Amino acid sequence: MTIPYKIYIEENEIPRSWYNVRADMKNKPAPLLNPATRKPMTAEELGGVFCTELVKQELDNDNAYIPIPDEIVDFYKMYRPSPLVRAYCLEKALDTPAEIYYKFEGNNTSGSHKLNSAIAQAYYAKKQGLKGVTTETGAGQWGTALSMACSYFGIDCKVFMVKVSYEQKPFRREVMRTYGANVTPSPSMETEVGRKINAEFPGTTGSLGCAISEAVETAVTNEGYRYVLGSVLSQVLLHQSVIGLETKAALEKYDIKPDIIIGCAGGGSNLGGLISPFAGEILRGENNYRIIAVEPASCPSLTRGKYIYDFCDTGKICPLAKMYTLGSGYIPAPNHAGGLRYHGMSSIVSQLYDDGIIEATSVKQTDVFEAAQKFARVEGILPAPESSHAIKVAIDEALKCKESGEKKTIVFGLTGTGYFDMVAYQKFNDGEMTDYVPTDEEIAASLAQCPKV
Amino acid sequence: MTIPYKIYIEENEIPRSWYNVRADMKNKPAPLLNPATRKPMTAEELGGVFCTELVKQELDNDNAYIPIPDEIVDFYKMYRPSPLVRAYCLEKALDTPAEIYYKFEGNNTSGSHKLNSAIAQAYYAKKQGLKGVTTETGAGQWGTALSMACSYFGIDCKVFMVKVSYEQKPFRREVMRTYGANVTPSPSMETEVGRKINAEFPGTTGSLGCAISEAVETAVTNEGYRYVLGSVLSQVLLHQSVIGLETKAALEKYDIKPDIIIGCAGGGSNLGGLISPFAGEILRGENNYRIIAVEPASCPSLTRGKYIYDFCDTGKICPLAKMYTLGSGYIPAPNHAGGLRYHGMSSIVSQLYDDGIIEATSVKQTDVFEAAQKFARVEGILPAPESSHAIKVAIDEALKCKESGEKKTIVFGLTGTGYFDMVAYQKFNDGEMTDYVPTDEEIAASLAQCPKV
Repeated sequence: MTIPYKIYIEENEIPRSWYNVRADMKNKPAPLLNPATRKPMTAEELGGVFCTELVKQELDNDNAYIPIPDEIVDFYKMYRPSPLVRAYCLEKALDTPAEIYYKFEGNNTSGSHKLNSAIAQAYYAKKQGLKGVTTETGAGQWGTALSMACSYFGIDCKVFMVKVSYEQKPFRREVMRTYGANVTPSPSMETEVGRKINAEFPGTTGSLGCAISEAVETAVTNEGYRYVLGSVLSQVLLHQSVIGLETKAALEKYDIKPDIIIGCAGGGSNLGGLISPFAGEILRGENNYRIIAVEPASCPSLTRGKYIYDFCDTGKICPLAKMYTLGSGYIPAPNHAGGLRYHGMSSIVSQLYDDGIIEATSVKQTDVFEAAQKFARVEGILPAPESSHAIKVAIDEALKCKESGEKKTIVFGLTGTGYFDMVAYQKFNDGEMTDYVPTDEEIAASLAQCPKV
Repeated sequence: MTIPYKIYIEENEIPRSWYNVRADMKNKPAPLLNPATRKPMTAEELGGVFCTELVKQELDNDNAYIPIPDEIVDFYKMYRPSPLVRAYCLEKALDTPAEIYYKFEGNNTSGSHKLNSAIAQAYYAKKQGLKGVTTETGAGQWGTALSMACSYFGIDCKVFMVKVSYEQKPFRREVMRTYGANVTPSPSMETEVGRKINAEFPGTTGSLGCAISEAVETAVTNEGYRYVLGSVLSQVLLHQSVIGLETKAALEKYDIKPDIIIGCAGGGSNLGGLISPFAGEILRGENNYRIIAVEPASCPSLTRGKYIYDFCDTGKICPLAKMYTLGSGYIPAPNHAGGLRYHGMSSIVSQLYDDGIIEATSVKQTDVFEAAQKFARVEGILPAPESSHAIKVAIDEALKCKESGEKKTIVFGLTGTGYFDMVAYQKFNDGEMTDYVPTDEEIAASLAQCPKV
């Protein structure tokens, strides 16, 4: 059977339930803790910050399948199913016996997979009768995705955008504004925590952790608003499982059995979503795969962080999460381009990594952009810097196959496009891109600030 | 039968031949003339500027179907078939009984339909053993598409980019560079004609007509290079017929009969490609459709130009073409955003318009951006300003249906995405966008410069 360049499942094959990998995990991810009492957060406590239905999903370690509401499926139909692409041209360019596939999530205006969870979170906010939601965004994909989702359901969207991105990525900001969102550079003077950080660090260009604090504060101090988050949380990985479920369905359509599954990892939303159904098979003893999480050498939470409870935000107002972390004060060096800059990692991914279900590796950004350029030139798609971390490792694995003569099947997640990352590409094109790898001392100093739990 | 949100034909249903509407036209488009002798350009004369095979296609008024080489079909498979989307959400937002469909050509890194012809032209250049090709680009879609195509076939790509775009759209430039293209702001000091224009109009920000002259000069004065063009020419409309053929196949799959087909029109490549198979049916007396070309009020070649022979470029070194034109010296006002800024119109489209096969209308850009924003918010896709001209008229026609209660089927071409047009969107978001409509005197003055043929 000839495998087409793009494997599409049918519109009526779009998953009708999300898959909750926690149900199959023997070691469940550790619960979120109340930062004051250090006791597990209750649904009631979480309900002050998050939408009620999303809290239920956040705390659900038992149900393997959670139905996707029709309204969300309808929205999915506008840009899903996304294609599983056979990288024929990349294979040829690498002269490898390996078969390479990528699940491409970039064919929507948000430019990434983030829309899968954004639309779900906006839906539950709308259903709860809320006026709107608040959030933070770094590179901008999440903010864009949420703006689109809120515009679709007609609710307010308030985005705190890390100041350096707000200034360097005015076009992302304009996309959000086109969808009707209110975008504020963070740290701002609109929140208590923003004013405090601005006073403490005058001229700071912001961080994700700080923007999170501002968004949370705004949600809890304004009637009818809740906070939503684009990664890290278990609910987000749940929504993102649509990626993995579609990937599995597409592979099965052509009887393809992957050997290696690769995803980039920042907070873990794309990786967790892509691998969930495959990890589930491993956990249930039904199948085996090598699963590789790829993170930037400049923000290596899995490969060089510690698996402990930490703050999720700079302002330390969010619940504590047990995760692989570099410490909540850790900020990647300014030469780090693109996303994947969060100091911690999703509790689910952290636990799967700790249990040896998945591997992790880190790569340098000049190598990542080299892989991105190679990929763009043969496969046509200009990838996001984030996604290119997975490309880099997929190429490496394919080249190992060339050496060994093995015909492995490699699947990776191409989470998005790089159309709003041209400043970074320009640096690379001009030969001015540099690498940064934190020293052990830097990481240790940052980790020393973690709470003692 | 429920019609899905996105109608895809199968990969093996991608057309294997382009459709040449000229074969079915009783009144053929007028031939290109040698600017010196005023006699029809011969294949030999054209061969100095264009690739041999493309010259054959340019002069072919007889063969209705021209096979697409396998290598081009393989490339098409990387981003085609493109979806024909049922605009369910837009229909609902407009509360119209009309059914609206759009053929979406933006799901590729060039962001538009231009890639369909770029890959064909790069292929023939490679096959002819050329070192590379030269071209011009305005808004940047064509240059990006050609860069991708040349990178795929491993030939040089030299792009003269209208200076104002080069400066206002650095990111487009960087995409081209990422694909290995050489990008020069036009007018440059690298060509005779560029130096002349710079001397005559110091500080000029350039025009498409001027960039064309520079690209042609560079092609004819460098061994192993030819010039390629992204619109206007009959060969380009031929390649773009893949849009119309796929659209027809998708409609037939669900037994949908369109009443109105709408496309934006600059040089005519998208419009001509989309409508060719439908115009062919009209010409053969098999079917009837309303076909509407939509152009900007600030560059209204069909609706306010004259159907005469004119220069194709500012430098007056290209063949003369008979077309609806505003005069080769016509440059849209600086407040005009996006593409659709060429002074003339494809000979094929011009002849079809003159013969009453298609209609034309013009729209103001603030109305266009309003339609773009509405579309983006309900359909999710942020459209290119060019494509939004078609959206505007599709919405108008759908609202007429609402008034009359008619359930018409409207199909329009969504040629591309607006991700690199955020400067224009920002102007619109800030309420600073203005309109410009040239006076009759301005157009008459520009037309007075046309050659007497």
